[in-house]
Amino acid sequence: MSISTPRGSEEGLHEILRVAAHCFMERGYAETSIDDVARRLGSTKGRIYHFFASKADLFFAVAEEGMDRNFAAIGPYLDAAGRAMDRLKSMALAHTMSMIENRAYQRSVWEGVAIHLRGATTPEQRDRLAALIAYRDSYSDRFRAALKAAKEEGDLQFKDAGIALQLMFLALNSPIFWYSPRHGETVEDRLNLAQQCVEFALRGLGAPAAMAGMTM
Amino acid sequence: MSISTPRGSEEGLHEILRVAAHCFMERGYAETSIDDVARRLGSTKGRIYHFFASKADLFFAVAEEGMDRNFAAIGPYLDAAGRAMDRLKSMALAHTMSMIENRAYQRSVWEGVAIHLRGATTPEQRDRLAALIAYRDSYSDRFRAALKAAKEEGDLQFKDAGIALQLMFLALNSPIFWYSPRHGETVEDRLNLAQQCVEFALRGLGAPAAMAGMTM
Repeated sequence: MSISTPRGSEEGLHEILRVAAHCFMERGYAETSIDDVARRLGSTKGRIYHFFASKADLFFAVAEEGMDRNFAAIGPYLDAAGRAMDRLKSMALAHTMSMIENRAYQRSVWEGVAIHLRGATTPEQRDRLAALIAYRDSYSDRFRAALKAAKEEGDLQFKDAGIALQLMFLALNSPIFWYSPRHGETVEDRLNLAQQCVEFALRGLGAPAAMAGMTM
Repeated sequence: MSISTPRGSEEGLHEILRVAAHCFMERGYAETSIDDVARRLGSTKGRIYHFFASKADLFFAVAEEGMDRNFAAIGPYLDAAGRAMDRLKSMALAHTMSMIENRAYQRSVWEGVAIHLRGATTPEQRDRLAALIAYRDSYSDRFRAALKAAKEEGDLQFKDAGIALQLMFLALNSPIFWYSPRHGETVEDRLNLAQQCVEFALRGLGAPAAMAGMTM
């Protein structure tokens, strides 16, 4: 989902989203104010209100940006030829790297889903939440399809497809709960973390060790 | 951790904790008030303040009760003789059943940890949070030890022990995010869900399918 903006202000918008994502990650939705974001931005509230009508508006834009980045990450692999298992592995690795590299945004996606599960309070929130959930569902459908195909090709073994999907996502999403960047960390270091998550998830879903492994 | 109470009021205390756990689960810590809990309890705020000085106090008592139940669940297996893998499997299944059956309490444990990660705000919160985190750490140490022993006995294969522990707990804890009781559900139904989580986690950690499976 993209936000239509006047020409030239794209960069300013992304700076607001980036800073807002970090504020929401650190304090949570309920305890973050537009004031907090403006302060961190070293800016006025007016600059934020130029783009966003409310805190809810800003929050959903952050979460949607997170989902945009996930879609962009897995896009190149969605129609790859070959075994479903190879496609699934590439998608899973790209997804997990997106969790690590866009952690602040992904925490807002996660919190949005949690708010949804609790029952949203205002009608405006409800509509935005419904859109976010639908967006996220269309994303997880890509994985659901890959899981199903890999099972049909005999490379995965699991009982209930819905539970398998939940377990896989919890494992792949787990860095948003425990990862924090280290000084001097490289892309290879992050890849190494992501590979451990993917290997865990694929083995967990019944992939043979040789297929789930990352020695490629 | 137990709360010292006047004789005879134990039952009333547990009723408050049970209702508070559901309120915190549904609305989250920030948006739940003592008023909400009293209303749901069909009682006065005084009844709650008789036991708890503040909302923070009540919240931590709920989370600690959740951890108490986890310790009680795995207790019978901690010193079992035999292979570490069998002990780990029993502990994992008991833990996952506790997630399902005490879901409301476990959501408070989870939220407490999330608040901790964000940085607690008041000194009182900080102390209680530190105690909760220490309590939870001493619990996860039991699993850490079992993982290590099972790896040394050749039944598990994983790279980084810290990441393995995180991934295992995310999988076993996952029902607190996706489980909700169904009408007419039996203990066997819940056991079936828990077994799928445990099988996923143990296979993910490199256990041979026959060992991770639940056909015992």
